[in-house]
Amino acid sequence: MDQENFRYEELARFIAALVDRGTLVPGTRAPSLRSISRDRKVSMATALQAYRLLEDRGVLQARPQSGFYVASRPPARKPPTTSRPPARATAVSVPAVVVKLLEHASDPNLVPLGCAIPDTNLLDAGRLDRLLARTARERGGVYNIYTGPQGDLRLRREIARRATRWGQALSPDDLVITVGCTEALVLALRAVTRPGDTVAIESPTYFGLLHALKALDLKALELPTDASEGIDLDPLQAALSQNRIAACLFASSFNNPLGCTMPDTKKLAVLDLLARHHVPLIEDDIYGDIYFGDERPRPFMALDRHGVTMYCSSFSKTVAPGYRIGWIAAGRHLPRVLDAKAALTLCGSVLPQAAFGEFLASGGYDSHLRRVRRVFAANIERMTRAIDRSFPAGTRVSCPAGGFVLWLELPQPVNTGVLFQAALDHGICFAPGEVFSASGRYANCLRISCGHSWDPWIERGVTRLGALAAEALMSNR
Amino acid sequence: MDQENFRYEELARFIAALVDRGTLVPGTRAPSLRSISRDRKVSMATALQAYRLLEDRGVLQARPQSGFYVASRPPARKPPTTSRPPARATAVSVPAVVVKLLEHASDPNLVPLGCAIPDTNLLDAGRLDRLLARTARERGGVYNIYTGPQGDLRLRREIARRATRWGQALSPDDLVITVGCTEALVLALRAVTRPGDTVAIESPTYFGLLHALKALDLKALELPTDASEGIDLDPLQAALSQNRIAACLFASSFNNPLGCTMPDTKKLAVLDLLARHHVPLIEDDIYGDIYFGDERPRPFMALDRHGVTMYCSSFSKTVAPGYRIGWIAAGRHLPRVLDAKAALTLCGSVLPQAAFGEFLASGGYDSHLRRVRRVFAANIERMTRAIDRSFPAGTRVSCPAGGFVLWLELPQPVNTGVLFQAALDHGICFAPGEVFSASGRYANCLRISCGHSWDPWIERGVTRLGALAAEALMSNR
Repeated sequence: MDQENFRYEELARFIAALVDRGTLVPGTRAPSLRSISRDRKVSMATALQAYRLLEDRGVLQARPQSGFYVASRPPARKPPTTSRPPARATAVSVPAVVVKLLEHASDPNLVPLGCAIPDTNLLDAGRLDRLLARTARERGGVYNIYTGPQGDLRLRREIARRATRWGQALSPDDLVITVGCTEALVLALRAVTRPGDTVAIESPTYFGLLHALKALDLKALELPTDASEGIDLDPLQAALSQNRIAACLFASSFNNPLGCTMPDTKKLAVLDLLARHHVPLIEDDIYGDIYFGDERPRPFMALDRHGVTMYCSSFSKTVAPGYRIGWIAAGRHLPRVLDAKAALTLCGSVLPQAAFGEFLASGGYDSHLRRVRRVFAANIERMTRAIDRSFPAGTRVSCPAGGFVLWLELPQPVNTGVLFQAALDHGICFAPGEVFSASGRYANCLRISCGHSWDPWIERGVTRLGALAAEALMSNR
Repeated sequence: MDQENFRYEELARFIAALVDRGTLVPGTRAPSLRSISRDRKVSMATALQAYRLLEDRGVLQARPQSGFYVASRPPARKPPTTSRPPARATAVSVPAVVVKLLEHASDPNLVPLGCAIPDTNLLDAGRLDRLLARTARERGGVYNIYTGPQGDLRLRREIARRATRWGQALSPDDLVITVGCTEALVLALRAVTRPGDTVAIESPTYFGLLHALKALDLKALELPTDASEGIDLDPLQAALSQNRIAACLFASSFNNPLGCTMPDTKKLAVLDLLARHHVPLIEDDIYGDIYFGDERPRPFMALDRHGVTMYCSSFSKTVAPGYRIGWIAAGRHLPRVLDAKAALTLCGSVLPQAAFGEFLASGGYDSHLRRVRRVFAANIERMTRAIDRSFPAGTRVSCPAGGFVLWLELPQPVNTGVLFQAALDHGICFAPGEVFSASGRYANCLRISCGHSWDPWIERGVTRLGALAAEALMSNR
């Protein structure tokens, strides 16, 4: 049974729709639990569960001894503007603040809005850990070997099996297990580029990707990217005609940090365009399983009739960042990927792979994913409302349909690099915009991670951050 | 207590010395157990244990109902000749046979003389596996995070502590945990070279290292290398004067495949030379703990007054190939190594690191190492005798003082690439010489791994391989 269809969630959607349509007016009393449970034919307990959910999401407010009220509606936020990076390849610079960001990533004293790492408690990987314990105890000797560079066969088989869900026919032989998605992207880049080559990317994009481009001596061509539908096609076409592009590297869905996802028709157009120019596409699907809608968006590879795609993903955002298990389906570039894997890390830690194969085979990962998706969706909603309440007027906020990060575009003049330091002084970590550009853009933007369990400390943190942003804006004017 | 000093080993050394000096003559009866236990003041059981050890090593032979006899002495083998590669940098070619070798590495149906991977049974990592199980069960949640790129602090602390044994003062902050020694070498190379640069290496050298050079677009300058004392100084000096060498990459001890180790005086001369030319030295100490003598040879870093050394090692050869835990002490290049680590793999699997830290802290690794060293020393001795008995006259064999591989130089004309295929057809895997050269040398050489528990199957395998080599030699003449 799909837990998305729980009755209380149905009821919550019904009430939220009434609020959105203006039937229920902010500041007025919501229907009583008694009346709504009678009208909608649900138990009082279900009605209460629905109202608590809406309270969590900021749609309703509970007032002591007085029941539930419709919360005041914040001013409607606009989405971030489409980026306009320069249409030329640049050497990648990784700003020094990235190091600071990574240093502070795991500081438990800071409000964790910085790195896009899910909360350990929220992931609840206990079953996986117990499987690792059992595998180590019972079969440690068997696995104290180097695997071939492809990695554990059982795990590859389970990953291939999962790919059939989005219509992709993969065999275990098509896959290479990697050290997280990071190594998958590095191997893909290594397979199809040479030092000095240019790679076309979304802008803004994940700083780890920029870091990898720099480490491999590659140039970046940043493409204008819409906060909702991803890169614009015309600039891509122009870039392909005017430059020697060795590869494109795009997110499959819910790009980090914008949260954009190309519709299938656009993905198909991109694939046709790249096939025509004989340019391979490396796709990063690390957030693909964290969708809030009814269906998982299809990655490029599942739509690709030309065989230009190299698919990269990992389990780091959904269950096990600490296991560092990623993978790549490299298509026709498999031999070069294998060669690079053997040369750079030979093979990965074997027992975690074996345990992960067991974890996937034994079921339960899908119900885990459903739970995680619900939590992240609720976090994104609550965080958006908190931002709406506390950030200066004119702040634009992304509205992702998956993942767990938000992208904010602040009114000018503000420098989020300076704000980053001020926030640290107030015990708050976030990711300043400049780290998401190869060419020092986005100084008025920032990314907020919603990967932690929601609590008053997080809420106070983002409220304080909004106030700091407003102060910065005032003092700069 | 140092188990090297067990009384039966003392007695075995005493008897072996009598054989070596000719006091006990091959083919004659060894002193009876009764007489030797009386003369040397040991129990009959100890005397029997010593004789069994000498029998294992091929020094004595037991004859039914007749007691122990001194084994026939094989013809004295000469060591391999010093290599004479061309004194110029070459693009690295990795022969296709490497892929075949890796494919066959873990085929349980082949006599495992190919890859230098220790036998799982011989390593007996059960205690480590149990610690991993406990850590996963009890603290899985705590470790389901990304570590910083340096890796687990506890593990780094334990590794730093161990380095004091060979006089090296390291702090945990000096170390970066890597995916085996392979990634350590890649990070070191990435830190001090640019694509197209030249790296000076020993010749022959480990094919994985050649593979890494190729993947990083580096050229190799192969240096003449003596089978006993490592690279020759004069050609190194000439190379440094005549070429732009970006780095040198040498084994600290027991080079794979030659088994050579530079004496300390030579290491000091190398360090002085490199410091004078401002060339960093990357050292690979993966075999350093597997020494057969009384003392661990000192790595370059422990002798380095100039700070030119980057030290790489791992636990893959001594206890846990499957855990893929290596490390690097990069000295002044640490920031660049950390940058490369973050870009290429971000961080490694966390639970195996945590368990390994616990394993080192809880003691027992040293007694494990003593046991492993004894086994490998005995394997090398038995394998050498088996080679002496079965390979064609004129075969030269290395005589390493550590590690677990032997290098054989066969009389011309023979092609070990062809022999490799013939041996596979007979169910035997070994490593043909060409894979140890960047420039296709050593077609008359081969490497034999002694990493497996000795048994009749291994002995028959090497005997058959010797016969195949003799046949190849005959048919080529």
